[in-house]
Amino acid sequence: MKYLCQVKYVGTDFAGFQFQPGKRTVQGELTKAACRLLGEGCRVTGCSRTDSGVHAEGFMLTLERPDGILPIPPERLPLAMGEYLDKDVALVFAQPVEASFHPRYDAKGKEYRYLIRNEPVDDPFWYHRAWQLRRPFLPDATQRMAKAAAFIVGEHDFAAFMAAGSSVTDTVREVFSCRVEREGALYSLHIAANGFLYNMVRIIAGTLAEVGFGTIAPECVADIIASRRRDRAGRTAPPDGLYLEHVFYGQTPWESRNRTK
Amino acid sequence: MKYLCQVKYVGTDFAGFQFQPGKRTVQGELTKAACRLLGEGCRVTGCSRTDSGVHAEGFMLTLERPDGILPIPPERLPLAMGEYLDKDVALVFAQPVEASFHPRYDAKGKEYRYLIRNEPVDDPFWYHRAWQLRRPFLPDATQRMAKAAAFIVGEHDFAAFMAAGSSVTDTVREVFSCRVEREGALYSLHIAANGFLYNMVRIIAGTLAEVGFGTIAPECVADIIASRRRDRAGRTAPPDGLYLEHVFYGQTPWESRNRTK
Repeated sequence: MKYLCQVKYVGTDFAGFQFQPGKRTVQGELTKAACRLLGEGCRVTGCSRTDSGVHAEGFMLTLERPDGILPIPPERLPLAMGEYLDKDVALVFAQPVEASFHPRYDAKGKEYRYLIRNEPVDDPFWYHRAWQLRRPFLPDATQRMAKAAAFIVGEHDFAAFMAAGSSVTDTVREVFSCRVEREGALYSLHIAANGFLYNMVRIIAGTLAEVGFGTIAPECVADIIASRRRDRAGRTAPPDGLYLEHVFYGQTPWESRNRTK
Repeated sequence: MKYLCQVKYVGTDFAGFQFQPGKRTVQGELTKAACRLLGEGCRVTGCSRTDSGVHAEGFMLTLERPDGILPIPPERLPLAMGEYLDKDVALVFAQPVEASFHPRYDAKGKEYRYLIRNEPVDDPFWYHRAWQLRRPFLPDATQRMAKAAAFIVGEHDFAAFMAAGSSVTDTVREVFSCRVEREGALYSLHIAANGFLYNMVRIIAGTLAEVGFGTIAPECVADIIASRRRDRAGRTAPPDGLYLEHVFYGQTPWESRNRTK
Protein backbone atom coordinates (compact mmCIF):
# COMPACT_ATOMS: atom_id res chain seq x y z
CA MET A 1 0.00 0.00 0.00
CA LYS A 2 0.96 3.60 -0.51
CA TYR A 3 -0.72 6.98 -0.42
CA LEU A 4 -1.87 8.89 -3.46
CA CYS A 5 -1.67 12.56 -2.48
CA GLN A 6 -2.73 15.89 -3.89
CA VAL A 7 -0.16 18.63 -3.41
CA LYS A 8 -0.35 22.39 -3.96
CA TYR A 9 2.65 24.64 -4.31
CA VAL A 10 3.67 28.12 -5.29
CA GLY A 11 6.54 27.29 -7.63
CA THR A 12 8.40 30.58 -7.35
CA ASP A 13 10.99 29.51 -4.80
CA PHE A 14 11.39 25.92 -6.02
CA ALA A 15 13.83 24.62 -8.61
CA GLY A 16 10.94 22.58 -10.01
CA PHE A 17 9.37 19.38 -8.71
CA GLN A 18 12.12 16.87 -9.27
CA PHE A 19 14.89 16.21 -6.78
CA GLN A 20 18.21 17.87 -7.60
CA PRO A 21 21.14 17.73 -5.21
CA GLY A 22 21.80 21.06 -3.49
CA LYS A 23 18.60 22.66 -4.76
CA ARG A 24 15.26 23.29 -3.10
CA THR A 25 12.75 21.17 -4.97
CA VAL A 26 9.19 20.08 -4.18
CA GLN A 27 10.16 16.40 -4.24
CA GLY A 28 13.13 17.12 -2.01
CA GLU A 29 11.10 19.06 0.56
CA LEU A 30 8.27 16.50 0.60
CA THR A 31 10.68 13.59 0.94
CA LYS A 32 12.46 15.31 3.82
CA ALA A 33 9.15 16.04 5.57
CA ALA A 34 7.87 12.48 5.00
CA CYS A 35 11.08 10.97 6.40
CA ARG A 36 10.77 13.12 9.52
CA LEU A 37 7.13 12.19 9.97
CA LEU A 38 7.15 8.52 8.93
CA GLY A 39 10.78 7.47 9.30
CA GLU A 40 13.76 7.12 7.00
CA GLY A 41 13.52 5.74 3.47
CA CYS A 42 10.16 7.28 2.48
CA ARG A 43 9.74 7.65 -1.24
CA VAL A 44 7.86 10.36 -3.13
CA THR A 45 6.96 9.71 -6.78
CA GLY A 46 5.42 12.49 -8.84
CA CYS A 47 2.90 12.53 -11.70
CA SER A 48 5.22 14.70 -13.78
CA ARG A 49 8.17 17.07 -13.54
CA THR A 50 7.22 20.68 -13.33
CA ASP A 51 9.86 23.27 -14.17
CA SER A 52 11.31 25.86 -11.86
CA GLY A 53 8.70 28.56 -11.16
CA VAL A 54 5.70 26.51 -12.32
CA HIS A 55 2.82 26.28 -9.81
CA ALA A 56 0.47 23.45 -8.92
CA GLU A 57 -3.05 23.32 -7.55
CA GLY A 58 -3.51 19.62 -8.17
CA PHE A 59 -0.13 17.92 -8.43
CA MET A 60 -0.48 14.19 -7.66
CA LEU A 61 2.16 11.96 -6.15
CA THR A 62 2.53 8.77 -4.21
CA LEU A 63 4.15 8.54 -0.83
CA GLU A 64 5.38 5.22 0.51
CA ARG A 65 7.44 3.68 3.24
CA PRO A 66 10.00 0.97 2.46
CA ASP A 67 7.94 -1.57 4.46
CA GLY A 68 4.65 -0.70 2.75
CA ILE A 69 3.06 0.23 6.08
CA LEU A 70 1.05 3.46 6.43
CA PRO A 71 1.28 4.37 10.13
CA ILE A 72 -0.87 7.53 9.86
CA PRO A 73 -4.47 7.49 8.57
CA PRO A 74 -4.92 9.39 5.28
CA GLU A 75 -7.18 12.09 6.75
CA ARG A 76 -4.46 13.01 9.25
CA LEU A 77 -1.63 13.19 6.72
CA PRO A 78 -2.27 16.77 5.45
CA LEU A 79 -2.01 18.38 8.90
CA ALA A 80 0.83 16.10 10.01
CA MET A 81 2.91 16.85 6.92
CA GLY A 82 2.13 20.55 7.33
CA GLU A 83 4.12 20.50 10.56
CA TYR A 84 7.28 19.72 8.60
CA LEU A 85 6.71 21.72 5.42
CA ASP A 86 7.31 25.36 4.54
CA LYS A 87 4.26 27.45 3.74
CA ASP A 88 4.69 27.46 -0.04
CA VAL A 89 3.85 23.76 -0.37
CA ALA A 90 0.99 21.77 1.17
CA LEU A 91 -0.25 18.21 1.01
CA VAL A 92 -4.01 18.70 0.85
CA PHE A 93 -5.45 15.21 0.39
CA ALA A 94 -4.34 11.59 0.70
CA GLN A 95 -5.95 8.24 -0.07
CA PRO A 96 -4.55 4.70 0.04
CA VAL A 97 -3.84 3.00 -3.29
CA GLU A 98 -2.36 -0.36 -4.31
CA ALA A 99 1.41 -0.72 -4.30
CA SER A 100 1.26 -1.20 -8.08
CA PHE A 101 -0.29 2.24 -8.66
CA HIS A 102 1.96 4.74 -10.43
CA PRO A 103 1.01 8.44 -10.35
CA ARG A 104 2.62 9.10 -13.71
CA TYR A 105 1.96 5.97 -15.75
CA ASP A 106 -1.59 5.51 -14.47
CA ALA A 107 -2.56 9.10 -15.33
CA LYS A 108 -5.09 9.30 -18.17
CA GLY A 109 -4.57 12.99 -18.67
CA LYS A 110 -3.74 16.33 -17.12
CA GLU A 111 -5.19 19.79 -17.12
CA TYR A 112 -3.13 22.98 -16.99
CA ARG A 113 -4.09 26.60 -16.65
CA TYR A 114 -1.95 29.39 -18.07
CA LEU A 115 -2.56 32.95 -16.87
CA ILE A 116 -1.67 36.01 -18.92
CA ARG A 117 -2.12 39.48 -17.49
CA ASN A 118 -2.46 42.10 -20.22
CA GLU A 119 -2.17 45.60 -18.82
CA PRO A 120 0.45 48.35 -19.17
CA VAL A 121 1.06 48.48 -15.41
CA ASP A 122 2.08 45.46 -13.33
CA ASP A 123 -0.04 44.28 -10.40
CA PRO A 124 2.03 43.34 -7.34
CA PHE A 125 -0.53 40.68 -6.38
CA TRP A 126 0.07 38.83 -9.67
CA TYR A 127 3.85 39.07 -9.66
CA HIS A 128 5.29 35.59 -10.33
CA ARG A 129 1.71 34.29 -10.64
CA ALA A 130 0.88 35.34 -14.19
CA TRP A 131 2.72 36.32 -17.37
CA GLN A 132 2.66 40.11 -17.45
CA LEU A 133 2.30 41.48 -20.99
CA ARG A 134 2.28 45.27 -21.10
CA ARG A 135 1.63 45.85 -24.80
CA PRO A 136 -2.14 45.83 -25.32
CA PHE A 137 -3.87 42.90 -27.02
CA LEU A 138 -6.35 43.64 -29.82
CA PRO A 139 -9.85 44.55 -28.57
CA ASP A 140 -11.22 41.20 -29.81
CA ALA A 141 -8.26 39.21 -28.44
CA THR A 142 -10.43 36.84 -26.38
CA GLN A 143 -12.45 35.75 -29.43
CA ARG A 144 -9.32 35.47 -31.57
CA MET A 145 -7.52 33.40 -28.94
CA ALA A 146 -10.60 31.20 -28.45
CA LYS A 147 -10.73 30.61 -32.21
CA ALA A 148 -7.05 29.69 -32.28
CA ALA A 149 -7.48 27.42 -29.25
CA ALA A 150 -10.16 25.43 -31.08
CA PHE A 151 -7.57 24.33 -33.68
CA ILE A 152 -5.48 22.81 -30.90
CA VAL A 153 -8.24 20.44 -29.74
CA GLY A 154 -7.98 16.88 -31.06
CA GLU A 155 -5.26 14.36 -31.80
CA HIS A 156 -2.36 16.09 -33.51
CA ASP A 157 1.38 15.86 -33.92
CA PHE A 158 2.43 18.71 -31.63
CA ALA A 159 6.12 18.75 -32.64
CA ALA A 160 5.82 22.49 -33.34
CA PHE A 161 4.94 22.98 -29.66
CA MET A 162 7.81 21.02 -28.14
CA ALA A 163 10.95 22.63 -26.73
CA ALA A 164 13.91 22.20 -29.10
CA GLY A 165 16.28 19.52 -27.88
CA SER A 166 13.65 17.25 -26.34
CA SER A 167 14.44 13.60 -26.95
CA VAL A 168 10.79 12.52 -27.26
CA THR A 169 10.11 10.92 -30.64
CA ASP A 170 6.37 10.28 -30.51
CA THR A 171 5.01 13.82 -30.58
CA VAL A 172 1.35 12.92 -31.10
CA ARG A 173 -0.96 13.92 -28.24
CA GLU A 174 -4.70 14.23 -27.86
CA VAL A 175 -5.91 17.57 -26.55
CA PHE A 176 -9.32 17.03 -24.95
CA SER A 177 -10.14 20.67 -24.34
CA CYS A 178 -8.50 24.04 -24.96
CA ARG A 179 -10.34 27.22 -24.10
CA VAL A 180 -9.63 30.85 -23.26
CA GLU A 181 -11.49 32.97 -20.72
CA ARG A 182 -11.05 36.61 -19.85
CA GLU A 183 -11.73 38.40 -16.60
CA GLY A 184 -10.61 42.00 -16.77
CA ALA A 185 -6.88 42.08 -17.50
CA LEU A 186 -6.51 38.33 -16.88
CA TYR A 187 -6.66 35.83 -19.72
CA SER A 188 -6.83 32.16 -18.67
CA LEU A 189 -5.92 29.37 -21.00
CA HIS A 190 -7.33 26.01 -19.85
CA ILE A 191 -5.91 22.99 -21.61
CA ALA A 192 -6.45 19.29 -20.96
CA ALA A 193 -4.74 16.46 -22.85
CA ASN A 194 -3.77 12.82 -22.52
CA GLY A 195 -0.19 14.04 -22.21
CA PHE A 196 2.00 17.05 -22.86
CA LEU A 197 5.33 17.48 -24.64
CA TYR A 198 8.11 19.41 -22.93
CA ASN A 199 7.08 23.10 -22.64
CA MET A 200 3.97 22.40 -24.74
CA VAL A 201 1.57 24.53 -22.68
CA ARG A 202 4.05 27.38 -22.42
CA ILE A 203 4.67 27.39 -26.20
CA ILE A 204 0.90 27.27 -26.84
CA ALA A 205 0.48 30.20 -24.41
CA GLY A 206 3.26 32.09 -26.21
CA THR A 207 1.54 31.41 -29.54
CA LEU A 208 -1.89 32.47 -28.28
CA ALA A 209 -0.35 35.69 -26.98
CA GLU A 210 0.81 36.44 -30.56
CA VAL A 211 -2.76 35.74 -31.67
CA GLY A 212 -3.93 38.24 -29.04
CA PHE A 213 -1.49 40.86 -30.37
CA GLY A 214 -2.55 40.11 -33.95
CA THR A 215 0.88 39.00 -35.16
CA ILE A 216 -0.43 35.46 -35.75
CA ALA A 217 -3.89 34.93 -37.28
CA PRO A 218 -6.09 32.38 -35.46
CA GLU A 219 -6.30 30.19 -38.58
CA CYS A 220 -2.50 30.03 -38.78
CA VAL A 221 -2.44 27.81 -35.72
CA ALA A 222 -3.63 24.90 -37.89
CA ASP A 223 -0.71 25.57 -40.27
CA ILE A 224 1.75 25.81 -37.40
CA ILE A 225 0.63 22.40 -36.10
CA ALA A 226 0.88 20.90 -39.61
CA SER A 227 4.35 22.38 -40.13
CA ARG A 228 5.74 20.51 -37.11
CA ARG A 229 8.29 23.36 -36.93
CA ARG A 230 9.08 24.87 -33.55
CA ASP A 231 10.20 28.12 -35.18
CA ARG A 232 6.72 28.70 -36.60
CA ALA A 233 5.08 28.78 -33.15
CA GLY A 234 5.35 31.63 -30.64
CA ARG A 235 7.97 31.99 -27.95
CA THR A 236 7.96 29.90 -24.78
CA ALA A 237 5.90 31.77 -22.18
CA PRO A 238 7.55 32.08 -18.74
CA PRO A 239 6.83 29.53 -15.99
CA ASP A 240 5.17 32.14 -13.71
CA GLY A 241 1.77 31.83 -15.44
CA LEU A 242 1.61 28.01 -15.51
CA TYR A 243 -0.48 25.96 -13.06
CA LEU A 244 -0.94 22.19 -13.03
CA GLU A 245 -4.65 21.97 -12.20
CA HIS A 246 -5.76 18.34 -12.37
CA VAL A 247 -4.45 14.89 -13.05
CA PHE A 248 -7.04 12.41 -14.28
CA TYR A 249 -6.99 8.80 -13.16
CA GLY A 250 -9.55 6.34 -14.46
CA GLN A 251 -12.00 8.00 -16.83
CA THR A 252 -11.40 11.59 -17.87
CA PRO A 253 -14.43 13.91 -18.10
CA TRP A 254 -14.02 13.93 -21.90
CA GLU A 255 -14.15 10.17 -22.28
CA SER A 256 -17.33 9.93 -20.25
CA ARG A 257 -18.86 12.74 -22.30
CA ASN A 258 -18.04 10.90 -25.51
CA ARG A 259 -19.56 7.70 -24.22
CA THR A 260 -22.90 9.26 -23.41
CA LYS A 261 -23.12 10.73 -26.90
CA MET B 1 0.31 71.28 -8.18
CA LYS B 2 0.97 67.72 -7.12
CA TYR B 3 -0.09 64.27 -8.16
CA LEU B 4 -2.75 62.21 -6.40
CA CYS B 5 -1.76 58.59 -6.99
CA GLN B 6 -3.27 55.15 -6.45
CA VAL B 7 -0.76 52.59 -5.20
CA LYS B 8 -1.00 48.81 -4.80
CA TYR B 9 1.29 46.75 -2.66
CA VAL B 10 1.72 43.33 -1.17
CA GLY B 11 2.51 44.29 2.40
CA THR B 12 4.35 41.11 3.39
CA ASP B 13 7.89 42.42 2.93
CA PHE B 14 7.24 45.98 4.06
CA ALA B 15 7.51 47.37 7.58
CA GLY B 16 4.23 49.20 6.85
CA PHE B 17 3.59 52.33 4.83
CA GLN B 18 5.26 54.98 6.88
CA PHE B 19 8.92 55.88 6.57
CA GLN B 20 11.15 54.39 9.29
CA PRO B 21 14.93 54.79 9.19
CA GLY B 22 16.70 51.53 8.30
CA LYS B 23 13.50 49.71 7.39
CA ARG B 24 11.91 48.91 4.05
CA THR B 25 8.65 50.84 3.96
CA VAL B 26 6.26 51.72 1.14
CA GLN B 27 6.75 55.44 1.69
CA GLY B 28 10.52 54.96 1.75
CA GLU B 29 10.59 52.95 -1.48
CA LEU B 30 8.24 55.32 -3.30
CA THR B 31 10.16 58.39 -2.16
CA LYS B 32 13.43 56.84 -3.31
CA ALA B 33 11.92 55.95 -6.70
CA ALA B 34 10.35 59.40 -7.11
CA CYS B 35 13.64 61.13 -6.29
CA ARG B 36 15.45 59.04 -8.90
CA LEU B 37 12.79 59.74 -11.51
CA LEU B 38 11.94 63.38 -10.74
CA GLY B 39 14.96 64.68 -8.83
CA GLU B 40 15.90 65.18 -5.19
CA GLY B 41 13.46 66.46 -2.60
CA CYS B 42 10.31 64.69 -3.82
CA ARG B 43 7.71 64.22 -1.11
CA VAL B 44 5.26 61.36 -0.71
CA THR B 45 2.27 61.88 1.63
CA GLY B 46 -0.03 58.95 2.38
CA CYS B 47 -3.77 58.70 3.10
CA SER B 48 -3.07 56.63 6.21
CA ARG B 49 -0.45 54.48 7.89
CA THR B 50 -0.84 50.80 7.20
CA ASP B 51 0.89 48.38 9.55
CA SER B 52 3.60 45.91 8.63
CA GLY B 53 2.15 43.08 6.56
CA VAL B 54 -1.06 44.91 5.59
CA HIS B 55 -1.82 45.01 1.85
CA ALA B 56 -3.30 47.71 -0.35
CA GLU B 57 -5.27 47.65 -3.58
CA GLY B 58 -6.24 51.30 -3.44
CA PHE B 59 -3.84 53.21 -1.22
CA MET B 60 -3.87 56.92 -2.12
CA LEU B 61 -1.01 59.35 -1.75
CA THR B 62 0.27 62.58 -3.13
CA LEU B 63 3.61 62.99 -4.83
CA GLU B 64 5.18 66.43 -5.21
CA ARG B 65 8.40 68.14 -6.14
CA PRO B 66 9.77 70.99 -4.02
CA ASP B 67 9.20 73.43 -6.90
CA GLY B 68 5.61 72.33 -7.54
CA ILE B 69 6.44 71.38 -11.14
CA LEU B 70 5.27 68.03 -12.56
CA PRO B 71 7.75 67.20 -15.32
CA ILE B 72 6.09 63.92 -16.37
CA PRO B 73 2.46 63.71 -17.56
CA PRO B 74 0.22 61.71 -15.19
CA GLU B 75 -0.51 58.89 -17.67
CA ARG B 76 3.23 58.20 -17.97
CA LEU B 77 3.94 58.14 -14.25
CA PRO B 78 2.88 54.50 -13.56
CA LEU B 79 5.29 52.99 -16.09
CA ALA B 80 8.06 55.46 -15.29
CA MET B 81 7.87 54.77 -11.55
CA GLY B 82 7.73 51.04 -12.29
CA GLU B 83 11.28 51.28 -13.61
CA TYR B 84 12.53 52.23 -10.15
CA LEU B 85 10.26 50.13 -7.93
CA ASP B 86 10.42 46.50 -6.80
CA LYS B 87 7.65 44.22 -7.98
CA ASP B 88 5.68 44.16 -4.73
CA VAL B 89 4.60 47.79 -5.06
CA ALA B 90 3.16 49.63 -8.05
CA LEU B 91 1.85 53.09 -8.77
CA VAL B 92 -1.18 52.37 -10.93
CA PHE B 93 -2.83 55.75 -11.51
CA ALA B 94 -2.01 59.45 -11.16
CA GLN B 95 -3.93 62.69 -11.61
CA PRO B 96 -2.98 66.32 -10.90
CA VAL B 97 -4.54 68.00 -7.86
CA GLU B 98 -4.20 71.40 -6.24
CA ALA B 99 -1.23 71.98 -3.94
CA SER B 100 -3.69 72.38 -1.03
CA PHE B 101 -5.07 68.84 -1.46
CA HIS B 102 -4.21 66.45 1.38
CA PRO B 103 -4.68 62.70 0.81
CA ARG B 104 -5.42 62.08 4.48
CA TYR B 105 -7.37 65.13 5.63
CA ASP B 106 -9.43 65.37 2.43
CA ALA B 107 -10.52 61.73 2.60
CA LYS B 108 -14.24 61.30 3.30
CA GLY B 109 -13.89 57.64 4.10
CA LYS B 110 -12.08 54.39 3.42
CA GLU B 111 -13.01 50.85 2.62
CA TYR B 112 -11.12 47.79 3.84
CA ARG B 113 -11.44 44.12 3.07
CA TYR B 114 -10.43 41.44 5.56
CA LEU B 115 -9.95 37.87 4.31
CA ILE B 116 -10.32 34.82 6.55
CA ARG B 117 -9.58 31.36 5.21
CA ASN B 118 -11.36 28.68 7.23
CA GLU B 119 -10.05 25.23 6.38
CA PRO B 120 -8.02 22.66 8.30
CA VAL B 121 -5.24 22.63 5.70
CA ASP B 122 -3.34 25.75 4.60
CA ASP B 123 -3.31 26.86 0.98
CA PRO B 124 0.13 27.99 -0.21
CA PHE B 125 -1.45 30.50 -2.59
CA TRP B 126 -3.11 32.32 0.34
CA TYR B 127 -0.11 32.31 2.65
CA HIS B 128 0.38 35.88 3.98
CA ARG B 129 -2.70 36.94 2.00
CA ALA B 130 -5.47 35.76 4.35
CA TRP B 131 -5.89 34.83 8.01
CA GLN B 132 -5.75 31.04 8.12
CA LEU B 133 -8.10 29.58 10.73
CA ARG B 134 -7.96 25.78 10.90
CA ARG B 135 -10.70 25.11 13.46
CA PRO B 136 -13.99 24.89 11.56
CA PHE B 137 -16.58 27.66 11.79
CA LEU B 138 -20.19 26.72 12.51
CA PRO B 139 -22.15 25.62 9.40
CA ASP B 140 -24.18 28.85 9.48
CA ALA B 141 -21.13 31.04 10.14
CA THR B 142 -21.75 33.31 7.14
CA GLN B 143 -25.28 34.20 8.29
CA ARG B 144 -24.11 34.63 11.89
CA MET B 145 -21.22 36.88 10.87
CA ALA B 146 -23.49 38.89 8.55
CA LYS B 147 -25.93 39.39 11.41
CA ALA B 148 -23.11 40.54 13.71
CA ALA B 149 -21.75 42.83 10.99
CA ALA B 150 -25.11 44.62 10.77
CA PHE B 151 -24.70 45.82 14.39
CA ILE B 152 -21.47 47.53 13.43
CA VAL B 153 -23.08 49.74 10.77
CA GLY B 154 -23.91 53.27 11.87
CA GLU B 155 -22.37 55.95 14.07
CA HIS B 156 -21.01 54.38 17.23
CA ASP B 157 -18.33 54.84 19.82
CA PHE B 158 -15.92 52.12 18.72
CA ALA B 159 -13.60 52.28 21.76
CA ALA B 160 -14.05 48.51 22.22
CA PHE B 161 -12.46 48.03 18.80
CA MET B 162 -9.40 50.20 19.30
CA ALA B 163 -5.95 48.82 20.15
CA ALA B 164 -5.08 49.37 23.79
CA GLY B 165 -2.63 52.23 24.23
CA SER B 166 -3.90 54.36 21.34
CA SER B 167 -3.87 58.05 22.23
CA VAL B 168 -7.01 58.88 20.23
CA THR B 169 -9.72 60.37 22.47
CA ASP B 170 -12.63 60.80 20.06
CA THR B 171 -13.53 57.18 19.37
CA VAL B 172 -16.80 57.82 17.51
CA ARG B 173 -16.81 56.74 13.87
CA GLU B 174 -19.53 56.19 11.29
CA VAL B 175 -19.47 52.81 9.59
CA PHE B 176 -21.22 53.17 6.23
CA SER B 177 -21.27 49.49 5.35
CA CYS B 178 -20.15 46.22 6.90
CA ARG B 179 -20.86 42.94 5.17
CA VAL B 180 -19.57 39.39 5.01
CA GLU B 181 -19.36 37.21 1.91
CA ARG B 182 -18.26 33.62 1.57
CA GLU B 183 -16.69 31.87 -1.40
CA GLY B 184 -15.68 28.33 -0.47
CA ALA B 185 -13.18 28.48 2.37
CA LEU B 186 -12.75 32.26 2.03
CA TYR B 187 -14.75 34.68 4.13
CA SER B 188 -14.49 38.34 3.11
CA LEU B 189 -15.37 41.14 5.45
CA HIS B 190 -15.98 44.44 3.63
CA ILE B 191 -16.13 47.50 5.81
CA ALA B 192 -16.38 51.17 4.87
CA ALA B 193 -16.36 54.06 7.34
CA ASN B 194 -15.61 57.78 7.59
CA GLY B 195 -12.54 56.80 9.59
CA PHE B 196 -11.01 53.91 11.49
CA LEU B 197 -9.43 53.65 14.93
CA TYR B 198 -6.08 51.95 15.32
CA ASN B 199 -6.49 48.20 14.55
CA MET B 200 -10.27 48.66 14.31
CA VAL B 201 -10.77 46.42 11.25
CA ARG B 202 -8.47 43.73 12.63
CA ILE B 203 -10.30 43.69 15.98
CA ILE B 204 -13.67 43.57 14.20
CA ALA B 205 -12.33 40.66 12.09
CA GLY B 206 -11.13 38.90 15.24
CA THR B 207 -14.55 39.41 16.81
CA LEU B 208 -16.43 38.16 13.74
CA ALA B 209 -14.22 35.06 13.73
CA GLU B 210 -15.44 34.33 17.28
CA VAL B 211 -18.98 34.77 15.97
CA GLY B 212 -18.14 32.26 13.24
CA PHE B 213 -16.87 29.78 15.84
CA GLY B 214 -19.95 30.38 17.99
CA THR B 215 -18.03 31.69 21.03
CA ILE B 216 -19.64 35.13 20.61
CA ALA B 217 -23.35 35.41 19.70
CA PRO B 218 -24.14 37.86 16.87
CA GLU B 219 -26.35 39.96 19.16
CA CYS B 220 -23.48 40.36 21.63
CA VAL B 221 -21.70 42.65 19.19
CA ALA B 222 -24.15 45.42 20.12
CA ASP B 223 -23.26 44.91 23.79
CA ILE B 224 -19.55 44.88 23.03
CA ILE B 225 -19.85 48.23 21.24
CA ALA B 226 -21.91 49.67 24.13
CA SER B 227 -19.37 48.41 26.71
CA ARG B 228 -16.55 50.44 25.11
CA ARG B 229 -14.26 47.76 26.59
CA ARG B 230 -11.46 46.37 24.43
CA ASP B 231 -11.37 43.15 26.49
CA ARG B 232 -14.96 42.31 25.51
CA ALA B 233 -14.14 42.19 21.77
CA GLY B 234 -12.20 39.41 20.01
CA ARG B 235 -8.46 39.29 19.51
CA THR B 236 -6.66 41.43 16.93
CA ALA B 237 -6.58 39.48 13.65
CA PRO B 238 -3.17 39.35 11.95
CA PRO B 239 -2.23 41.89 9.27
CA ASP B 240 -1.98 39.23 6.50
CA GLY B 241 -5.73 39.30 5.79
CA LEU B 242 -6.15 43.09 5.67
CA TYR B 243 -6.44 45.06 2.41
CA LEU B 244 -7.01 48.79 2.03
CA GLU B 245 -9.44 48.80 -0.89
CA HIS B 246 -10.67 52.35 -1.51
CA VAL B 247 -10.26 55.86 -0.25
CA PHE B 248 -13.20 58.16 -0.90
CA TYR B 249 -12.69 61.80 -1.83
CA GLY B 250 -15.65 64.08 -2.43
CA GLN B 251 -18.93 62.23 -2.01
CA THR B 252 -18.87 58.64 -0.75
CA PRO B 253 -21.30 56.16 -2.36
CA TRP B 254 -23.24 56.12 0.92
CA GLU B 255 -23.76 59.86 1.11
CA SER B 256 -25.08 60.02 -2.42
CA ARG B 257 -27.43 57.15 -1.63
CA ASN B 258 -28.76 59.01 1.42
CA ARG B 259 -29.31 62.17 -0.56
CA THR B 260 -31.50 60.52 -3.14
CA LYS B 261 -33.69 59.05 -0.42
